Amino acid sequence: MAIEFQLLYKEKNTAARAGKLSTPHGQVDTPIFMPVGTQATVKSMTPEELKDIGAQIILSNTYHLYLRPGSELIAEAGGLHKFMNWDRPILTDSGGFQVFSLSELNEITEEGVYFRSHIDGKKMFLSPEISMEVQMELGSDIVMAFDECPPYPADYDYLARSLERTIRWARRCKAAMTNENQALFGIIQGGVHEDLRRISVEAMLEIGFPGYAIGGLSVGEPNEIMYEVLEFTVPLMPEDKPRYLMGVGTPEDLLEGVMRGIDMFDCVMPTRIARHGAVYTSRGRLTVRNGKYTRDFTPLDPDCDCYVCRNYTRAYIRHLFNRKEILGVRLATYHNLYFLQKLMEKAREAIMTDSFLEFRDSFYAKYKD
Amino acid sequence: MAIEFQLLYKEKNTAARAGKLSTPHGQVDTPIFMPVGTQATVKSMTPEELKDIGAQIILSNTYHLYLRPGSELIAEAGGLHKFMNWDRPILTDSGGFQVFSLSELNEITEEGVYFRSHIDGKKMFLSPEISMEVQMELGSDIVMAFDECPPYPADYDYLARSLERTIRWARRCKAAMTNENQALFGIIQGGVHEDLRRISVEAMLEIGFPGYAIGGLSVGEPNEIMYEVLEFTVPLMPEDKPRYLMGVGTPEDLLEGVMRGIDMFDCVMPTRIARHGAVYTSRGRLTVRNGKYTRDFTPLDPDCDCYVCRNYTRAYIRHLFNRKEILGVRLATYHNLYFLQKLMEKAREAIMTDSFLEFRDSFYAKYKD
Repeated sequence: MAIEFQLLYKEKNTAARAGKLSTPHGQVDTPIFMPVGTQATVKSMTPEELKDIGAQIILSNTYHLYLRPGSELIAEAGGLHKFMNWDRPILTDSGGFQVFSLSELNEITEEGVYFRSHIDGKKMFLSPEISMEVQMELGSDIVMAFDECPPYPADYDYLARSLERTIRWARRCKAAMTNENQALFGIIQGGVHEDLRRISVEAMLEIGFPGYAIGGLSVGEPNEIMYEVLEFTVPLMPEDKPRYLMGVGTPEDLLEGVMRGIDMFDCVMPTRIARHGAVYTSRGRLTVRNGKYTRDFTPLDPDCDCYVCRNYTRAYIRHLFNRKEILGVRLATYHNLYFLQKLMEKAREAIMTDSFLEFRDSFYAKYKD
Repeated sequence: MAIEFQLLYKEKNTAARAGKLSTPHGQVDTPIFMPVGTQATVKSMTPEELKDIGAQIILSNTYHLYLRPGSELIAEAGGLHKFMNWDRPILTDSGGFQVFSLSELNEITEEGVYFRSHIDGKKMFLSPEISMEVQMELGSDIVMAFDECPPYPADYDYLARSLERTIRWARRCKAAMTNENQALFGIIQGGVHEDLRRISVEAMLEIGFPGYAIGGLSVGEPNEIMYEVLEFTVPLMPEDKPRYLMGVGTPEDLLEGVMRGIDMFDCVMPTRIARHGAVYTSRGRLTVRNGKYTRDFTPLDPDCDCYVCRNYTRAYIRHLFNRKEILGVRLATYHNLYFLQKLMEKAREAIMTDSFLEFRDSFYAKYKD
């Protein structure tokens, strides 16, 4: 077994839980937020800085690395960990989501997906087998099954047919994943429909994976609908396996997900908004580029004890953004990732002391988005 | 006295020398290279990283900070050191060079220079008194006199007239610099002409400063001419005061300057070329963006022991530049500044052991530019 999951504690008042995930590159405390390192780098950060903020696992994107620099090159470099100088766990997605969202899609067949690279328009093909081969070359600790992720809203009949194909693809992924040091997670699809989600869970359980992800959420549906889907899907999932909600999310979505029994999250938002000068604070989101911070000599978040908040003012960081200085992006990114890391650490503590609801309420009382 | 300079050792075979400069924010070992932090940030670097590479003093630009965010704002923040979180020495230039090179120049009068901001075209004015006032608001340890820096080549008569005005301006600077915690350096001009340089040195010595800079070099003249100017100018300068060659330079120019008795240097080149994917190595300059490094899994410089060379390959850094990832610029900048820092440390050791020429020869034997 490449990974082992230990459920440490179930909070008394909610479905929230704390666990420990062991991987070939070390342990991960759940619930956990995974910073996204699309191009084999978490944008603007060194691996040492990721460790400073307490990051235990990162996500990287198969689609992007498959196109550039190519997974063969990364294999030649000794794998993704060595290539990017990160010795803690890595989860790679399957490339499926990006093929459907980024590239010019040519054709979905039973065999796989024909598409054009969003970089140079080159014709390419991804299938369950190729995705597994690429992820084996990358050498990630956790590998995701190749699936179709339909948009929201989608036609019920299309969703049902897509779901069946995703199930067949999941079987092929399992057969193709031959590296026993990598753990393949199944992905549950089915849009916002309870019956389809149930079919998907049952099929994935029947195939059998060491972990299960919920895909197809945070793709445009209202938050309340996402929470509802979690409420009828998570209880169908096994207790003794990690549960990963893909592509989520905001501080609120993380707390709502944790409360409904999710263990793992990833999202580009903290790094993406940082590049536009927006940061999370205990009082809500703040755009530090804004002129009103020109002479604000307080830290980004007065309640934060991170490197950035201990050493720099809003006025300085605003100046850096104003002058397009790289250090501005660095400081905002560092702070945002620290903020989510701390949020999850505190959530975990609250779970262990059966006080998750109080923690969530006190967070919301200050945080105005 | 804001600063004290101690001449520690004069190399036996050349004019090279080692010294120690004490400032209100700490000591500096000379010869020294000062990284440039134009906008109150050494591009892409944190202050902690600058300390990691051994940077002892940085330069920042009065012209840029005067325009944005404004020196009043920086004074309000507690001065430049506090604003940018750098507690070691800072040298600020006078703004003169940038007024002449960057802005749309309107008019040079005896009083000062009228120009338009290169950012928003706003009409502005800089004079010896305003430059001193701005530098006092910034609170740098070493302040430069406001001078005119003519281009190369320049008309002899123009140079002579400009020089006289620069001398009058230097007197006004000295009168206007009233903060005794800041050391004002005089600047020697005179183009490539021995008689004008002599007039300039004599006038500056008569006014009297705790340090002297050589300006108006590295502005387009051939290297050999620059070295010649140093050869007839440096011997005129006092031994017991630091000598600063402004805006220089390349690894070769640093060694040639040290050999001719220069103590301090600054240049944007290491940070600027890094942004374009070019790095210094013991074998010469190398453009890591180049396709030939696609599968080169060796460090930027096999002879370098810096953080970047210990942890990353050319292939990875090339990938980062290829994908426009900020980490690429960061790693190249870090390495280049480390390279120059080490070069100066080794030069200093060679001076202390009377082996500067051997050191220089062995550097050139490998370094092919």
